Amino acid sequence: MKITRTWNRDNIAQIETLFHTANGYLGVRNAPEEGHVPGSIRGAYINAFHEIVDIHHGEKLFGFPETKQTIANVPDAQTIRLTLNGKSYAMLSDETADREQTVDTETGLAVRSSVWMHPDGAVRVIFTRMASFEIPNLFLLRLRVESVDYDGTIAIESTLNGDVTNYANADDPRVAAEPLRCLTLVSSSIEEDEAMVVCRTLRSGLTVACRAMQGCSLPGGWEGEGALFAGHYEGRLRPGECVKLNKLVVYTDSLRCGDPAEEARRVMREVRTLGGNELIRRQKKFLAAWQERAIPQLCAPEPLPQALTYDLYQLLQSTGYDGVSSVAAKGLSGEGYEGHVFWDSEVYVFPFFLWTQPEKARGMLTYRWRLLPAARENARTLGMAKGALFPWRTISGGECSAFFPAGTAQYHIDADIAYAFLQYWYVTGDLAFMAEMGAEVLVETARMWLELGHMQDGEFRIDCVTGPDEYTCCVNNNFYTNAAAQYNLRGAAEVLRTLREAGLEQTVLGATGVTGEEEEAFLTAAQAMRLPRDERLGISPQDDSFLQKKPLDWKALPKTDFPLLLHYHPLFLYRHQICKQADTVLAHLLFPDTADIGTQKKSYDYYDAVTTHDSSLSVCVFATQAARLGDLARAREGFEATATLDLLDSHGNTKDGLHTASLGGAYLAMLRGFAGIRAEADGLSVDPVLPEGWEGYSLPFAFRGRSLRLTVSAGETRLELTAGEPLEVRMGQNSVLLIKAE
Amino acid sequence: MKITRTWNRDNIAQIETLFHTANGYLGVRNAPEEGHVPGSIRGAYINAFHEIVDIHHGEKLFGFPETKQTIANVPDAQTIRLTLNGKSYAMLSDETADREQTVDTETGLAVRSSVWMHPDGAVRVIFTRMASFEIPNLFLLRLRVESVDYDGTIAIESTLNGDVTNYANADDPRVAAEPLRCLTLVSSSIEEDEAMVVCRTLRSGLTVACRAMQGCSLPGGWEGEGALFAGHYEGRLRPGECVKLNKLVVYTDSLRCGDPAEEARRVMREVRTLGGNELIRRQKKFLAAWQERAIPQLCAPEPLPQALTYDLYQLLQSTGYDGVSSVAAKGLSGEGYEGHVFWDSEVYVFPFFLWTQPEKARGMLTYRWRLLPAARENARTLGMAKGALFPWRTISGGECSAFFPAGTAQYHIDADIAYAFLQYWYVTGDLAFMAEMGAEVLVETARMWLELGHMQDGEFRIDCVTGPDEYTCCVNNNFYTNAAAQYNLRGAAEVLRTLREAGLEQTVLGATGVTGEEEEAFLTAAQAMRLPRDERLGISPQDDSFLQKKPLDWKALPKTDFPLLLHYHPLFLYRHQICKQADTVLAHLLFPDTADIGTQKKSYDYYDAVTTHDSSLSVCVFATQAARLGDLARAREGFEATATLDLLDSHGNTKDGLHTASLGGAYLAMLRGFAGIRAEADGLSVDPVLPEGWEGYSLPFAFRGRSLRLTVSAGETRLELTAGEPLEVRMGQNSVLLIKAE
Repeated sequence: MKITRTWNRDNIAQIETLFHTANGYLGVRNAPEEGHVPGSIRGAYINAFHEIVDIHHGEKLFGFPETKQTIANVPDAQTIRLTLNGKSYAMLSDETADREQTVDTETGLAVRSSVWMHPDGAVRVIFTRMASFEIPNLFLLRLRVESVDYDGTIAIESTLNGDVTNYANADDPRVAAEPLRCLTLVSSSIEEDEAMVVCRTLRSGLTVACRAMQGCSLPGGWEGEGALFAGHYEGRLRPGECVKLNKLVVYTDSLRCGDPAEEARRVMREVRTLGGNELIRRQKKFLAAWQERAIPQLCAPEPLPQALTYDLYQLLQSTGYDGVSSVAAKGLSGEGYEGHVFWDSEVYVFPFFLWTQPEKARGMLTYRWRLLPAARENARTLGMAKGALFPWRTISGGECSAFFPAGTAQYHIDADIAYAFLQYWYVTGDLAFMAEMGAEVLVETARMWLELGHMQDGEFRIDCVTGPDEYTCCVNNNFYTNAAAQYNLRGAAEVLRTLREAGLEQTVLGATGVTGEEEEAFLTAAQAMRLPRDERLGISPQDDSFLQKKPLDWKALPKTDFPLLLHYHPLFLYRHQICKQADTVLAHLLFPDTADIGTQKKSYDYYDAVTTHDSSLSVCVFATQAARLGDLARAREGFEATATLDLLDSHGNTKDGLHTASLGGAYLAMLRGFAGIRAEADGLSVDPVLPEGWEGYSLPFAFRGRSLRLTVSAGETRLELTAGEPLEVRMGQNSVLLIKAE
Repeated sequence: MKITRTWNRDNIAQIETLFHTANGYLGVRNAPEEGHVPGSIRGAYINAFHEIVDIHHGEKLFGFPETKQTIANVPDAQTIRLTLNGKSYAMLSDETADREQTVDTETGLAVRSSVWMHPDGAVRVIFTRMASFEIPNLFLLRLRVESVDYDGTIAIESTLNGDVTNYANADDPRVAAEPLRCLTLVSSSIEEDEAMVVCRTLRSGLTVACRAMQGCSLPGGWEGEGALFAGHYEGRLRPGECVKLNKLVVYTDSLRCGDPAEEARRVMREVRTLGGNELIRRQKKFLAAWQERAIPQLCAPEPLPQALTYDLYQLLQSTGYDGVSSVAAKGLSGEGYEGHVFWDSEVYVFPFFLWTQPEKARGMLTYRWRLLPAARENARTLGMAKGALFPWRTISGGECSAFFPAGTAQYHIDADIAYAFLQYWYVTGDLAFMAEMGAEVLVETARMWLELGHMQDGEFRIDCVTGPDEYTCCVNNNFYTNAAAQYNLRGAAEVLRTLREAGLEQTVLGATGVTGEEEEAFLTAAQAMRLPRDERLGISPQDDSFLQKKPLDWKALPKTDFPLLLHYHPLFLYRHQICKQADTVLAHLLFPDTADIGTQKKSYDYYDAVTTHDSSLSVCVFATQAARLGDLARAREGFEATATLDLLDSHGNTKDGLHTASLGGAYLAMLRGFAGIRAEADGLSVDPVLPEGWEGYSLPFAFRGRSLRLTVSAGETRLELTAGEPLEVRMGQNSVLLIKAE
């Protein structure tokens, strides 16, 4: 599947995002090779590689974080300047024609092509980029210049530059006004056709090495010193001839190895042994296997099938699973949200990996487990004697939210993470992982709920929290939070019981010292959890007071007032019945046992009317739940909006990076919404629906060591076991035993 | 009455505060004359004379203020260096003995005296300071050096310095880390024995002129240039002889006059015509009249009578009533809270002026009226189509709170200001002022409540507000807020009706365009105001959810954990039943009709148990209400704690400035608590009590053009009309007609 765009002065940064090349470890925005142009947000990032910066609070109260982590720009290796007869190529110049930017999800290559109508004759200029899935340290960049009728000199300058800064924009209050320089040069060198810069962040003390090798069909080689090296190549280009430059760039960092410089040398040797062409072949091979295993085939009108494939390809590009990284809100495609990891990772992105690539899902969970010590510290800051509270936004574990009402107060992130661990267990059956890491996370998060909430009048109440909906902050008994906490508490007790029965409880006992009384208390709190129903409206109230608040006729507001958070004071939003995003609807989707179907339907309609969807995390949830409630028209419409959110730039800020939660939401809508695939402790259930206008779909997934494929069309629903042992599955009201066809 | 202290290395800044000299316009901290010493917070301030500085938010949302006002240090004229035989005087040196710092509330002078055991003989060094009540621009400073047995040279250097900065302390996160320089020099000059510097603030564009004249018994005169001038005087001092320096300093500013330099010249001429000695005489005369008119005589064990007099003297020093200033949280005694005006002014300080110096009370209200345009703008920022919302903290009208949950969300400040306007009307009967300014403020604040609240199920609800208790933020239907809003709404309707009946409604109609429908809506909202009672506990709930929150065993916490806000995250405090300060108790005190006496008593006990009194605004309210509820032991204890709060530095931060709210709270406890003096629309009521251990008290006050004095002793209660027309007063259950004794 190929996505194609043309570029112009207004969409440069959007192109940079949509066509960035990444592989979960390394991400390079598709910036103009010739260097900075107005509107560009040039950058390359290593997942979780960050600097530390101060947070300035207008009024600093106890426990407010004093610093935060921010994703660091790493050395720039994407700059290649092409000069013909003394005139330089510029992708935005009036002389370029046939501008075409593509990404192909089958080859894993991004290609930028144009015809340069040089005064002395036309040439075709083609840049090809790849971030290797085979060797994640590798970024490959190729230039090919084909003369149509140009005859003259050609010069190519291709650089490696450690002197980079993060993006700044003095006109945008949401972005740093002054460019942040994260790196200082440690060492640099040229060794034959390879150049290397080694840099260290000033405050976080992380080291990155960037080693580049290039070969060109013209004579030349590396020059330079300090943080900047340039390869210069010069010669002559005649009609029909072609000049090529191949650049192989290896990034390594001290989060993942002891000696990044040495590791870069080693990986470069490996890369060179294989060669660029072989790595390009392997990229294609990797993606063929991945698509077979992970990508639903959708027979529906374009651009939907294309968009879905694009979205999932971007999830693959964005997500780290090496245990020290996960998926940031913008993946590796931009600096929006500063590279921070939110609940998006577990609730929105995780299911895709869980159901198709569980080994990667495990990597994401390992990342959280490794942050437990910081989460314990965070809980202490919040006045809790026990337990762990994961920060609302983080890279390396410290809270990076500078506004607690819509940040730290979202305690639900603990339950969201616990939910992912439990889902991992239910889907994979991997009890060993639960024994080693999962149970510890579940116990520490469950403890947090006991500290946070309290029993009154027979109910377990959780006061002063913020649910997912950030237009309603610091309220009591948020329905989503309470429902998720209940799942967390029950799950913790369940995994403890299961480990005990399997004789595998030693690790969690050693790590947490959890007692039988605590296990009992988890169950008691879960049992008594306050989850009320508003009898008058027949819905689940978003929190104790939401339904008493003043209605807001938001549909009468001018379009320019949206998103409301950019035009209304938080106190205005908080005192009205207005939602930024799905909250109670998400609770009903993830925890359907908390309300009967009638309540869920009425709640859906009620919250749909008061939700602006100003958050990109919202429409996908409404779409998914609509499918579950049988409103397939709404489901399809929401799914389309979700799947095309970045491709159509419908939130207007794709330039800052992809919306990974929405990308994941598209999968959620397919898996949970349309296919009705769900796992709980008692096993797998499948309950598919097919919206009007779709011919059908076919969805591969993994469950407890087995491979399955669900195929749905107007005439038929087929669930196949393509590998593994027989399996009992609940389909609608029936239970069926699947056996692998011979 | 005289207060005396000695000084040492540890209490320098506390001495500076307690003995600062001020007059409502000008305030000079009692800093070491010889110049900066460690621990000192040197400063001189003009009420409301401010600079503008940026606010840096960790995460800036819509409507967050981008700048704030901050009180500016004005030129330093308190520096006088004394040198004997080449050795300089230092108040903290081991050579000083008999250190005595006094302030005398009858003379209005602060005197610092010590004996300097100079190696060449002893001298007595006496500094006298005065901020004139007669000519508020004047600061007078005198030095007297008396030789006991010293024989040698004497040199005096006395300076005027426009090059000053605000206080900074890199070790205290609550104070600016870098000294802020607010002033830039505009011009300076020496004219015979007068020197002058004229400076302008950089961003707020205000001008201050400081003109100093000095005369000395030694020969010498001014020298210098730029922002720094020094008078040098030299000669010989022999045993038994005395050297004197008299310094007259005039401050003027562009908030109050068009040409501060010219005005300083004019005022200096006036000052010199009168002479320092005459101004000192007039200071004493002014204070004698003031004390007769304003100060309760208290026959109770010391230090109570002394402390009360000190407190009220400080209120006189702190409060501006020129219409461009009021009283800051720290008065003119320090830079704590940056010179900002809060609700303290109207609820805590205002009653003293209202009941004893109503012309000054009117000045305080005029200040608020002049800020109405900014308050309207603030309401628009908060999403209100109509009405005015006064900022939580301000100098010139813009919101200076950088943390809205404990700042801007305290909408009750509108009702507090409205309460002061209504009380002014009830106490003075000044309908003309209500026609001119009061009604406009009442209508605009009442409109704000209509915008903020809404009707549901027959109740008028006000959601997402913070009451006075800052340990409970952004809640629904805070009892105090709703009660105060009800008073505001009713009062607005009442004043409109009264003005209409008197044919005086034109000004308010022109200013606000208020309609009959709005007037009706004010009354409807007031009538339907949600003011629930918790039937189980028999108390008024602080808000809709306070009583459902988790109890906190705060008495078990170590003393070092207090104030809790410095040791616990706001989210911890918000989710517990814990109060920083009086809230519902204050509602019952100010609006006793909102709950019956039984409910008030039970509420008092309930909230007393959950209130830490971490705020200096708390104990005085509990003391006053205890007196009203007949618990006189508690009332006396609380009153003692209140009256001595700064003198004993019981909050540990008197160094940053006086706690003017607590100073005013001491008067509130006397007037409203013990004397039981209260005015409402229907007139004056007096209902005094006398705690055990007190012989009695005598309290002068003014009411509707009359002078009265209430005298209470164990045997007798006497209410005298000392001037004015006969008056009907409710005393306890009876109504009595007072006639002036012949």
